[in-house]
Amino acid sequence: MKGKRYIIGVIGSGGEDPEFNRLAEEVGSVIASKGHVLVNGGLGGVMEASARGARKNNGLTIGILPSTDASAANPHVEIPLPTGLGEGRNLLIIRAASGLVAVGGGFGTLSEIAFALKLKKPVAGLKTWDVSEDIMEASSPAEAVEKVIKAIEELDKTG
Amino acid sequence: MKGKRYIIGVIGSGGEDPEFNRLAEEVGSVIASKGHVLVNGGLGGVMEASARGARKNNGLTIGILPSTDASAANPHVEIPLPTGLGEGRNLLIIRAASGLVAVGGGFGTLSEIAFALKLKKPVAGLKTWDVSEDIMEASSPAEAVEKVIKAIEELDKTG
Amino acid sequence: MKGKRYIIGVIGSGGEDPEFNRLAEEVGSVIASKGHVLVNGGLGGVMEASARGARKNNGLTIGILPSTDASAANPHVEIPLPTGLGEGRNLLIIRAASGLVAVGGGFGTLSEIAFALKLKKPVAGLKTWDVSEDIMEASSPAEAVEKVIKAIEELDKTG
Amino acid sequence: MKGKRYIIGVIGSGGEDPEFNRLAEEVGSVIASKGHVLVNGGLGGVMEASARGARKNNGLTIGILPSTDASAANPHVEIPLPTGLGEGRNLLIIRAASGLVAVGGGFGTLSEIAFALKLKKPVAGLKTWDVSEDIMEASSPAEAVEKVIKAIEELDKTG
Repeated sequence: MKGKRYIIGVIGSGGEDPEFNRLAEEVGSVIASKGHVLVNGGLGGVMEASARGARKNNGLTIGILPSTDASAANPHVEIPLPTGLGEGRNLLIIRAASGLVAVGGGFGTLSEIAFALKLKKPVAGLKTWDVSEDIMEASSPAEAVEKVIKAIEELDKTG
Repeated sequence: MKGKRYIIGVIGSGGEDPEFNRLAEEVGSVIASKGHVLVNGGLGGVMEASARGARKNNGLTIGILPSTDASAANPHVEIPLPTGLGEGRNLLIIRAASGLVAVGGGFGTLSEIAFALKLKKPVAGLKTWDVSEDIMEASSPAEAVEKVIKAIEELDKTG
Repeated sequence: MKGKRYIIGVIGSGGEDPEFNRLAEEVGSVIASKGHVLVNGGLGGVMEASARGARKNNGLTIGILPSTDASAANPHVEIPLPTGLGEGRNLLIIRAASGLVAVGGGFGTLSEIAFALKLKKPVAGLKTWDVSEDIMEASSPAEAVEKVIKAIEELDKTG
Repeated sequence: MKGKRYIIGVIGSGGEDPEFNRLAEEVGSVIASKGHVLVNGGLGGVMEASARGARKNNGLTIGILPSTDASAANPHVEIPLPTGLGEGRNLLIIRAASGLVAVGGGFGTLSEIAFALKLKKPVAGLKTWDVSEDIMEASSPAEAVEKVIKAIEELDKTG
């Protein structure tokens, strides 16, 4: 990898939705193909799909878990980090990531988007909550990841 | 006071907006007049106004602060609780409260609304984020507080 | 009350030990008799005994709970604050308090004493961990509370 | 690597002490040589030395930071995780690790040892706090790491 390695978060629902999972897997795949690290909440649905996608490209995957039980992580999480903070771990995902891609998602994801916007972290959205113009629209997983990386690089320069 | 005493959260922006502050002060005033405890984030704007309103009726006011500095609390907070968790304290407000009134608010408030909905705590809204039908609409501070208390009482019964 | 009202923490084991409970109840009683607020972890043993003592003198008692369940608080806690942070709530007790009295205690109490010493909060000890000369020795509950209050007042003056 | 990969924590003071740093570097080196992941608090002293040792053997190093600033991590941290929780991150290190090695250390380290003992995580000590017989004594970094790994493996078997 030539460029800098970033930690990129993927947020979305833990429920199993075929379309969201397909998008999330592709998001994870693209993140890893560019040499970046994926962080997410470590459970099912969008979290598992994105980790699976990243692992296909040998990406490093970190799961910041709500419980104290590392074995709750999906099998594609290389580094499970149990926190015991419940939903409190949502903020930790946002603080750990330099930028985020949101795929679908319920109220937990909404809390994460809100924190990301509050903390001025770049967020790209795929079929997710439409609560702010600060969320970068994307028509494909690849475009979402590219927009987030570009935004992170620009913040890094002006940083 | 005859009924049970509840801890009711008031969430909203820390910025100073005359209309939001007027609404928030009335919300705090009604909460205290009914003998309930007010919890909020302890800083300015809606937080300060609602605490001021509660104190006018001798209500107990708790401020769950983002920093480690108790003196950051507004002067109407009787019990300042510095957490040092930054925005992590937002979740603690939601967990401490049995129900919430949201007045206006930015992304921090949005994170709180999302947590409240995720945790199935009753939320009434006054000119706030319109992200779910689960937020109870109210046309006045008194109505907002009444709806929240009624919802808490019903949850209490069904256990 | 003439002086300033402080939030004083009482830390110690959740197990039931007659001697520790007797000491803790007296500590709570003295804190309330001087008009101060008691904060602790809200559960049994030293936590329940100190809250009971404070309530005998109509003191305000705050319980910062590890779970998300307010009903886990002992019956002498006026303000139960469920956090859902597990042992993470130990640090919040220390941050909330201006000074602390430790009575007996296991590893959880040791973590609290360590945080208190790290954050330079005054700590008085009654039959507790002997890990630092910074812990003020006391031969009675009244002496422990007095030493903590005096230390808080001195910190208040010097800012 | 043949066996299972564990996340092992190294805890100790952030101050610079030549002897502690030498021990910590060797601890990190042994952890990585056995294919395990190192987690620590990401700052200086024992944290930096242990990460440097791990990186010499191409180990993966994770730094769970107190601030919100990833750039506060020492240069040997591959995965900096800013938390913004201050000393609250101490508990996260313990929850993330399956076992720990303590090298010297002040009150922060004492809080970590207390949490580890409370949560029944194996801890080996090198010139550290002598607060419990549950801390496994070791006469060298290699022995400390070996004892921790053996204890983790036994816990793994018994589930």
